[in-house]
Amino acid sequence: MGQKSILTPRATDFPKWYQDVVAKAALAENGPVRGTMVIRPWAYAIWEHVQAALDRRIKEAGAENAYFPLFIPEEYLRREADHVEGFSPELAVVTHGGGKQLEEPVVVRPTSETIINSYFSKWVQSYRDLPLLINQWANVVRWELRPRLFLRTTEFLWQEGHTCHVSEQDARDYSVRILRDVYEDTMANVLGIPVRVGRKTPRERFAGAINSWTCEGVMGDGKALQMGTSHELGQNFAKVFDTQYLDDAGAQQYVWQTSWGVSTRLIGALIMTHGDDNGLRLPPAVAPTQVVVLLVRDEAGAGDKAAAIAAELKAKDVRVHLDTRVDTGFGRRAVDWELKGVPVRIEVGPRDLAEGNVTLVRRDTGEKKTIPADGAAAAAADALAAVQANLLGEATALRDSRTVEVTTVDEAREAAQDGFGRIPWEALGDDGETQLAQGGVTVRCLQTADGGLPTGEAEAGTVAYVARAY
Amino acid sequence: MGQKSILTPRATDFPKWYQDVVAKAALAENGPVRGTMVIRPWAYAIWEHVQAALDRRIKEAGAENAYFPLFIPEEYLRREADHVEGFSPELAVVTHGGGKQLEEPVVVRPTSETIINSYFSKWVQSYRDLPLLINQWANVVRWELRPRLFLRTTEFLWQEGHTCHVSEQDARDYSVRILRDVYEDTMANVLGIPVRVGRKTPRERFAGAINSWTCEGVMGDGKALQMGTSHELGQNFAKVFDTQYLDDAGAQQYVWQTSWGVSTRLIGALIMTHGDDNGLRLPPAVAPTQVVVLLVRDEAGAGDKAAAIAAELKAKDVRVHLDTRVDTGFGRRAVDWELKGVPVRIEVGPRDLAEGNVTLVRRDTGEKKTIPADGAAAAAADALAAVQANLLGEATALRDSRTVEVTTVDEAREAAQDGFGRIPWEALGDDGETQLAQGGVTVRCLQTADGGLPTGEAEAGTVAYVARAY
Repeated sequence: MGQKSILTPRATDFPKWYQDVVAKAALAENGPVRGTMVIRPWAYAIWEHVQAALDRRIKEAGAENAYFPLFIPEEYLRREADHVEGFSPELAVVTHGGGKQLEEPVVVRPTSETIINSYFSKWVQSYRDLPLLINQWANVVRWELRPRLFLRTTEFLWQEGHTCHVSEQDARDYSVRILRDVYEDTMANVLGIPVRVGRKTPRERFAGAINSWTCEGVMGDGKALQMGTSHELGQNFAKVFDTQYLDDAGAQQYVWQTSWGVSTRLIGALIMTHGDDNGLRLPPAVAPTQVVVLLVRDEAGAGDKAAAIAAELKAKDVRVHLDTRVDTGFGRRAVDWELKGVPVRIEVGPRDLAEGNVTLVRRDTGEKKTIPADGAAAAAADALAAVQANLLGEATALRDSRTVEVTTVDEAREAAQDGFGRIPWEALGDDGETQLAQGGVTVRCLQTADGGLPTGEAEAGTVAYVARAY
Repeated sequence: MGQKSILTPRATDFPKWYQDVVAKAALAENGPVRGTMVIRPWAYAIWEHVQAALDRRIKEAGAENAYFPLFIPEEYLRREADHVEGFSPELAVVTHGGGKQLEEPVVVRPTSETIINSYFSKWVQSYRDLPLLINQWANVVRWELRPRLFLRTTEFLWQEGHTCHVSEQDARDYSVRILRDVYEDTMANVLGIPVRVGRKTPRERFAGAINSWTCEGVMGDGKALQMGTSHELGQNFAKVFDTQYLDDAGAQQYVWQTSWGVSTRLIGALIMTHGDDNGLRLPPAVAPTQVVVLLVRDEAGAGDKAAAIAAELKAKDVRVHLDTRVDTGFGRRAVDWELKGVPVRIEVGPRDLAEGNVTLVRRDTGEKKTIPADGAAAAAADALAAVQANLLGEATALRDSRTVEVTTVDEAREAAQDGFGRIPWEALGDDGETQLAQGGVTVRCLQTADGGLPTGEAEAGTVAYVARAY
């Protein structure tokens, strides 16, 4: 555009750039209570598309949605020792209700394992009731001392799945199915983010789980973002809440369980993976507006032509917005749509139109093309597929270029200064992990040598990805 | 079915019947904290269909979804005097967060007028920013001493719309648009509930509003259920939160506002409007399963035929479930699907099939028809439209048969013992309203003589509907 960017350049100060994008694209604001967040319409509409993509896949994986209470008796959380240790510093506690002090304080859910298990123990009686596959979309609260919008907030929106199975193998298979078919697939093919999928080390594992799988994204500054986790809970909660079933031989057995979640943090991932110095770049699959038709000046039939192109796109089920605010400068409007990350822009003005043309601009590459006005809707629809593919391609290149093969703890620490180090676990080990942690570098996940999911950290050939993380 | 009903008959004890339906159809359970609710998958799936119908209409009315924080500084609620008086006995208060006592206690939102207005006052600058039309889907908390699942719960799910307009007339028009095009339309044409739409008396008005419109349903026991409200807030909140805009003449003006909401209470309305002594009867538009294909015995090709019919229905975009649990008695399964309110059932068994037939059962009328197996899918799809229309028709007949024209306060009180009394407002008045309230009878809404919306209660010809209410 020739306009000077209104954002701090990423290379100058990435965290400041992030804040600028969140504010200037009107994505979110801080709430009045520390760490809380107002999600503004543009970001909420992105979230609705992310939700829809996840929800469809969750249902295809056989889980049903339900809703459990926000308030949990404090005592429930104390029952599972590791779990409460993980959460107690983060809890919000209600002590007064209905104008009176409560006899027992109530916790605002930080996650719902305990309250859901108290119902599972009633609902599960026989092997015929299994698997029991439940998901809920909800808000959760974890008091946050160093909040950052979308990435770490005291309240956030998420889905949390909770399941019961007859055997450890069934539970493991389901945790992997969610990891792969729901999370990894949505992240790569909807959000355009090629996550690294792997196993957490015991140090990084969810409190109360026997194994945590994770999806780790590589952000624009080379740091890692944990974008989703799927846990095998073993029988920890089942034993605490006495969730047993009668097996087909007539014996009582504890169920094997999983839990898994992703949150509004995914919006932070979108911003930091695809964003550039001009703002957001949205994958068409989650863009609230996929094509904006921008009327330059309403002269010589440009207004009618812009409306016709928009109507044609709408008929193709493209999410299109017609911008006719000609009393606001064209350049300012173009900059604003770039800031908001709309994937494709069609500029309709009298000068181009006199020659039968309009201008098509791709947000991902910045490429501008003069094209015949009559084919504009079809060209825009084609461009959407190209943008979706290109953003995934660019993010894959980013991920790979920011990853360095290393063989020592020192090299790993060095690599993590602006990206990921990939190091054999046998060269790192618990001691190396502890040393790195002192410098704020963590093992993001473990994979087998060929990129698969290891059954444990001790497996020969296991590789660790280390990085600094949000 | 010949089976004895597993529910308390409605005529014997309507509240007990309601509890039975909620429990036996696995709709919901009480949460561990008084008044909270677990919404089980069948009811949550109904809610998802209700939500989708409302959300589509809300967006068509131009509102955008957003999300504001759960936690509100206590001080915000104290700012608008009437508003805080309305809510203070119902508040849940967080006093501890992150392991420490908070400097200022935080309230769990009972509704979001105050926190949303604190942002509106920043976002609204000029008349160009208006109207500002925002909706959110969220949980809210109002401490409930006499909870009843779906109808009155300490935590419930709802949508709350909040808007700003340049003039009183614009705000009024929008509050009516939501009332009619979103609420009344969804209730009648999706839920099959022909609500009475009217104006609340000052006594029944939302705290902080200058006018409340309401949708009142007539339940199976003749009692009223307030199913949704749309409020004109005037400039009350605008003045407290200083939400002003620069008009086109360059003068600062306070905005005029509306707010409006419906909640999971709508599920209670569905149960109590359409339910019968065999359980729920769901309108197809919100039924998680619209047609169940029930395999009687897997003999003589019945299994294949049942699967083929289910596949054919699925191809028609009907939500279909194939029940092949032949190891459970046929009668028991049929009773269970009736309990859950599935609108249409197709029974596929070897005996009928030997003659090329299956049995089609309508849940609303109980009517059973032997029909050719080859046309079963088409017949079931046709039956869905008939069930949807018939449930609305029956509910309309219920509403009308439970309403009595009266002319005195005593007659109105009498009519409200098992239904609605319709009385000229001039025969009732504030005094009559107060007298009725002593016996638990309230004015549900005011209408003009021809069923329209009165501009005030003093208008000549205004009619009051009085009833006992949930």
